[in-house]
Amino acid sequence: MRDQRTIRATYYLESEIEPERAAAAMAGEQSSGTFVAVPGESPELHKRHGAQVVGVEPLGDCRPSLPSRTTPEKVQAALVTVEFPMENVGTDLATLQTAVAGNLFELGQLYACRLQDIGLPEEFVAAHPGPAFGIPGTRRLINDVEGVMIGTIVKPNVGLHEDQFRHVVRELARASIDLIKDDELMTDPGYLPLQRRVAIATEEIRAAEQITGHPTMYAFNITGDLAGLRRRHDLVVEAGGRCVMLNVPVMGIPAVAWLRSFTAVPIHGHRAGLAASMRAKGLGVDYRVWQQLARLAGADHLHASGLGSKFYETDDEVAANVRSLLEPLGSTTTPVPTLSSGQNVTTPGPTYAAVQSTDLLMLAGGGVAGHPDGPTAGVQSLRDAWAVAVAGVPLAEAARSRADAGNRALLHAVQKFGGA
Amino acid sequence: MRDQRTIRATYYLESEIEPERAAAAMAGEQSSGTFVAVPGESPELHKRHGAQVVGVEPLGDCRPSLPSRTTPEKVQAALVTVEFPMENVGTDLATLQTAVAGNLFELGQLYACRLQDIGLPEEFVAAHPGPAFGIPGTRRLINDVEGVMIGTIVKPNVGLHEDQFRHVVRELARASIDLIKDDELMTDPGYLPLQRRVAIATEEIRAAEQITGHPTMYAFNITGDLAGLRRRHDLVVEAGGRCVMLNVPVMGIPAVAWLRSFTAVPIHGHRAGLAASMRAKGLGVDYRVWQQLARLAGADHLHASGLGSKFYETDDEVAANVRSLLEPLGSTTTPVPTLSSGQNVTTPGPTYAAVQSTDLLMLAGGGVAGHPDGPTAGVQSLRDAWAVAVAGVPLAEAARSRADAGNRALLHAVQKFGGA
Repeated sequence: MRDQRTIRATYYLESEIEPERAAAAMAGEQSSGTFVAVPGESPELHKRHGAQVVGVEPLGDCRPSLPSRTTPEKVQAALVTVEFPMENVGTDLATLQTAVAGNLFELGQLYACRLQDIGLPEEFVAAHPGPAFGIPGTRRLINDVEGVMIGTIVKPNVGLHEDQFRHVVRELARASIDLIKDDELMTDPGYLPLQRRVAIATEEIRAAEQITGHPTMYAFNITGDLAGLRRRHDLVVEAGGRCVMLNVPVMGIPAVAWLRSFTAVPIHGHRAGLAASMRAKGLGVDYRVWQQLARLAGADHLHASGLGSKFYETDDEVAANVRSLLEPLGSTTTPVPTLSSGQNVTTPGPTYAAVQSTDLLMLAGGGVAGHPDGPTAGVQSLRDAWAVAVAGVPLAEAARSRADAGNRALLHAVQKFGGA
Repeated sequence: MRDQRTIRATYYLESEIEPERAAAAMAGEQSSGTFVAVPGESPELHKRHGAQVVGVEPLGDCRPSLPSRTTPEKVQAALVTVEFPMENVGTDLATLQTAVAGNLFELGQLYACRLQDIGLPEEFVAAHPGPAFGIPGTRRLINDVEGVMIGTIVKPNVGLHEDQFRHVVRELARASIDLIKDDELMTDPGYLPLQRRVAIATEEIRAAEQITGHPTMYAFNITGDLAGLRRRHDLVVEAGGRCVMLNVPVMGIPAVAWLRSFTAVPIHGHRAGLAASMRAKGLGVDYRVWQQLARLAGADHLHASGLGSKFYETDDEVAANVRSLLEPLGSTTTPVPTLSSGQNVTTPGPTYAAVQSTDLLMLAGGGVAGHPDGPTAGVQSLRDAWAVAVAGVPLAEAARSRADAGNRALLHAVQKFGGA
């Protein structure tokens, strides 16, 4: 059994030298190693503080995935497991990131370096509170809503003025939607400042609740300067807002943890920019790892693209990422996997088949606002599509039978978005 | 002449469809576009808030650089220039990052997406203070030191206990070195807490100054949780420390800007983790762009790898990055380009030839501590090597003539590190 005081990390590496030696050099760089021997290095120090390569699985030769100072014709690929002494890192998230995902990507002797997975000791996980709301807390704030939560993004995402914005929120809130969010590009622009957005949206949501009985949650994007982060959070909370949003890769994991330390509402974690360090297969950090850091920091909702989306990941990859969000992480509360991009009535079927859970938030932009009968029908069609997916009934058949019973929302959505 | 209210960004893109269309879709995604037409979209809104593709330079066909949902045999490469309305972004750095380097990396129809350069309007640049110290302020704090500043990293970088740490700092400070820094992995571990490190290092540096007359600067790594950032900064400053260090990619650009808002000392900006979003040629963000954001946020020193380093970038790439740091950015103070990894007496020659400047900080780990005659000779050998490089004298010849005159530091370094 492994030492519970080590942090285990699995890397895909490529090197010209044997994988064992390349892995050892990398482990040294990320712990107690130096390239030129210096006084003070002792066997005891290396034993206690050196990262250890505990597994090497050769994967054969290939062409180098990444550029370097030299360009060999072929390199050796391997899956490598390294254990970092927790004593080097303590329980700090930024230090952890620096250790497992820092300088190592720069090493010239590696032609691929990808952090694929991480195993954190109980003591590390227990030092972090995790999401304050997660799935149960978010449901509670939306009238204990059951099943997949349906959300949307205010569209057009930029450029709306106050009266237009009010109109969009009014329509969506009166459609009994569970969550409305700002686009990641919408922060605090002069033409529609956050303060005005918060005032208008909370007012419209309260008014809609009087009619519908449904308290729509709005995720206000408080991404921006850290000096103003608490002020923007407070502004949302004081106006009665019930969710704040952060562009996590841009703001950094430490910013999530800091926001978590004082937030009164769920943190909606957007992933804009994440693909810059995730999309190249031989470089960067896998979603599996990133989501653990974001959860420990306290993100309550985490974006994971969506099956059938316009983004690069295949449906299998998206499904695996969603499932990783639903895996336990110590005793932390499970966050809400958030599906977005290209979501409409055709996606619940494949999504439920792949993840077998309704503990999800599905964001549909065009799928709500673009419904031929308006947003109320848009929301209804998505709820219907989820009920159909869970029941295992074919979509077209269900759409027709519902239409026969007088509910045409799903049928009209299927006719517009496909699945007929 | 271009509209001074736009942010210009240049991308390398690959797409299966014509580059013009791919670029337009990307520009739409990053501004006012939606994939499904929704109410409220008007020609006026798109005109005012839509990002515009202002240049497309086709670069021919190639194999796709990145994975996506589909894997075409070949794609079309192009250099594309996009102008983003500043009105969408305001002057916020996090919003800027989200706009120019956010969701676009995810787009399935792009098979490469690399932000290569950015041109910011005067108004944007002027809204940020930039480095509070930069080159002049840093020199001032080190007795107006002239020429290339010589620094080093405490080695072994992790695992030293108090007495060992004290010994290392004492030796280095008495060697009249300009700067000592913590390793990026060294933050606030239980076995050598920041508070103890600050107390010991400042004490040793003051004592050494009594002997040498040279006030060594120590860059204390205050990377860690944001809730404690100001406390850690204050702890350094109150003890008389004169520099704080931040792992910028891990902490985020907003963290640098926040630290800048209250720091009393220069911010030493490490780049650990940056390569994760920089090393794959068809993905992520170029150093040219990143350094502008870090400078606007207020980093006083910025790491740029080093010529002859153990990192992946070629010497030409490193030199170009160093030169980018020395380019003007509005009226902000120029930061200190910081060279690291594999730096020793052999690297000043090629470095000076490539960048023609001595406004640099060279960090040499083994090159100082590993000198056969000890760190004082290590520092002396590096100063000598720089004088020789600037004078344009061949290194071996200069080493011999200095040895003949009684100064053997350079000769012994050359014999150990090469260049003989």
